[in-house]
Amino acid sequence: MQKGHQSWIFESKPVIISSAVVGGPFEAKGNLANDFDILHEDIWLGQDSFEKAEKKLLEQACEKAIEKSGLKKEDIQFFISGDLMNQIISSSFTARTLGCPYLGIFGACSSSMEGLALASLLVDSKFAKYVLAGASSHNAAAEKQFRYPTEYGSQKPPTAQWTVTGAGAVLLSQKGEGPCVTSATIGRVVDMGISDPFNMGAAMAPAAVDTIEAHFRDLNIDLNYYDVIATGDLGQVGHRIAKDLLIKHGLNIKPEILTDCGIMIYKDDQPVMAGGSGCGCSATVTYGHFLNRMRKKELKRILIVATGALMSPISYQQKESIPCIAHAVSIEMP
Amino acid sequence: MQKGHQSWIFESKPVIISSAVVGGPFEAKGNLANDFDILHEDIWLGQDSFEKAEKKLLEQACEKAIEKSGLKKEDIQFFISGDLMNQIISSSFTARTLGCPYLGIFGACSSSMEGLALASLLVDSKFAKYVLAGASSHNAAAEKQFRYPTEYGSQKPPTAQWTVTGAGAVLLSQKGEGPCVTSATIGRVVDMGISDPFNMGAAMAPAAVDTIEAHFRDLNIDLNYYDVIATGDLGQVGHRIAKDLLIKHGLNIKPEILTDCGIMIYKDDQPVMAGGSGCGCSATVTYGHFLNRMRKKELKRILIVATGALMSPISYQQKESIPCIAHAVSIEMP
Repeated sequence: MQKGHQSWIFESKPVIISSAVVGGPFEAKGNLANDFDILHEDIWLGQDSFEKAEKKLLEQACEKAIEKSGLKKEDIQFFISGDLMNQIISSSFTARTLGCPYLGIFGACSSSMEGLALASLLVDSKFAKYVLAGASSHNAAAEKQFRYPTEYGSQKPPTAQWTVTGAGAVLLSQKGEGPCVTSATIGRVVDMGISDPFNMGAAMAPAAVDTIEAHFRDLNIDLNYYDVIATGDLGQVGHRIAKDLLIKHGLNIKPEILTDCGIMIYKDDQPVMAGGSGCGCSATVTYGHFLNRMRKKELKRILIVATGALMSPISYQQKESIPCIAHAVSIEMP
Repeated sequence: MQKGHQSWIFESKPVIISSAVVGGPFEAKGNLANDFDILHEDIWLGQDSFEKAEKKLLEQACEKAIEKSGLKKEDIQFFISGDLMNQIISSSFTARTLGCPYLGIFGACSSSMEGLALASLLVDSKFAKYVLAGASSHNAAAEKQFRYPTEYGSQKPPTAQWTVTGAGAVLLSQKGEGPCVTSATIGRVVDMGISDPFNMGAAMAPAAVDTIEAHFRDLNIDLNYYDVIATGDLGQVGHRIAKDLLIKHGLNIKPEILTDCGIMIYKDDQPVMAGGSGCGCSATVTYGHFLNRMRKKELKRILIVATGALMSPISYQQKESIPCIAHAVSIEMP
C-alpha cells in the first residue's frame, strides 16, 4: 500500500525466511566476524581477478541463503541484485549462475535496500512467491575501478572509507517464520554540491536525513519507534553530520538508536579511515548481524537506511558534484 | 497478479497517459524521424561532453512527457530509469534534476522494458499513482566507453550495431486515456558462449526467444495474439537467428508479426551495419513510433521484447562470454 508521497507499507509482511552473508579477510578480523556464514582468508577467493572474486562472494551468499531456506534454485522466481561494478557484472553473472528471472538494479551502496524494497513489493503485492535479493562489493575491485589499484599505494585522507569485501542475500516469502519487512521509503536524489570522492560520508549524510524525515512523515509513527536506525555507510564523518542534521530538522531521535553499518563492521584498530562502505557493507551488517540479533529477540524493530553516492569516475572527472540517495526499509519481528 | 513462473498480469491495466522521445542527428535522418518529439542536429546537444549530452536527452524526454500529461514534476511519485553508462549516471543525474524518488535499474538495452514492467507493477499494485519510466543511450558516449572513441576511426564488422542517440520516457497512471500496459515477462540470463561484442545480436537472440517462449507459456494465449512482436535491438543478424530459433522451438508466430526496433529505426542506406542498439533504441521506437500507431488505432496489441547484453569491457577483457537477457512487456489499446 502506498503511504504518503514516497513510502510503501507491506501489509502482508513478507518474511525473510533465510539470509546469508559472505566476507573477506578484513571482515574476518572485524567486529562482526561471528555474524558471517562464510569468511575467506584469500581476497582473490581462488579466482584470477578481483571482479571474479566479487561474483564468487555474491554467488556464495545467494546459494547459502537458498540452501538455508530448504528451497531449490528452481523455486526462486526472481533475483533482484545490484553492485558497484560497471554494468553491475557481479549481479548479472550471478544471475547467470542462478538461472532464475532477474531484475538488475543500481543505487550504488543503496542497492541493498533498493533490492529489499522491490523484493518485498513483489511478494506483498502477490506478484511473486519467492524472491531473492542480493548486493555485493569487493574492496580491491572497487579501488581499481573508482580510485587507484591498491598496488599503487596511493594515500587517502582520514575522511575516506574502506569498501567492504562482502555479499549478502535474503530470501523473501509470502509465508514462513522470521523477521518481516514492514515498510520502505524510496529516496530522492540529494546533492549538496560536494565533489570529493574521498568524503562520501559527508556527501551522503543529507540524503540519509531526507529519507529518514520522509519515512517518519509518511508513516506518521513515533520518532523512537525503532530499536535501531542504521544508516548504510556514512562512516564516522557522515554519521556525525547526519546526527547534527537530524536535530536541525527537528527530528529528535534518541542518539543511542542511531548507528551506522560503516562504523559497526570494523574494529577501531583496523586502518579503515572513517569506516566501511560499499553495497556489501549494509548488506552484510543487515542480513548478518542485525537479522541474527532479531532472531535472538535482542531487537524487535529496525530501520536500515542504505545510502548511495551515484557518481562515476567519469562524472567526477567532468567536475560534477556527487548526487546521493538513501532508501529505507523497516524490518520487524512478528 | 503473478501468472506462471515469470510473468505478471496487470489487471488494473495501468495507462500510459503520456510519452516523449528525443533523438540525435542520425535518428533525424532515420525511418522514424516523424515520431520524435525533439530531434537534435548537434550530437553534443550544446554540452561539453557526450555523457552530459546523454543526460540532456533523458532530461528532455522526461520533462516533455510530464509536460504533455499536464501534471507537474511534484506529482510524479517515482522515477525508474536505466542506461548504459557506468553507474547509470545519465539516469541518476536526471533523477537529480527531476527531484522525485528514484529507483535506478540496469539491464543494459533491456532497461527500457525492465523499467516499464516495474513502473506498471507499482501502479497496478496501488503502490503509486504516477510513475515515470525512462531509458537513454548516446552513440558517442557508448562507443567511448565500450569500444573506442569514434575519433579513432576504428573499423567494425558487418555484425556490429549502431548505438542509438536517444531517450524515451512514459508516464504511467492508475487512470486516464491511452495505451495500457497489460502484462510483463521478466527474463532469465541466457548465455550461449558468444564473447564477440561486435555481434551482440547473435548473443542476445536466444534470450529474446527464451522470454517470448516463457511469455506465451505463462499467459497461455494464442501465438498470433499480438499485432506486432518487436525485439529490442537484435539487428539484422540477431533477428534472423531469433526467427529461426522460434521455429525450432515450435513457436510458429506469423513472420509478418515479428520485427525488431534495431532494424526499424534507421534507413537501409544509413551506415549502421546490422542496425540500431542501445537502451535508447527500444525506448524511442516503442514510446515514439509504436505508441503513436496505437493512438492512431493502427495497432491494438503489441509485445516489446527488449534485449540486453549484460557484459562490461572488463568482463570481455577477462574472456567472459556475454550473458544476455530480455524482458517483455505487452501494451494494448482499451
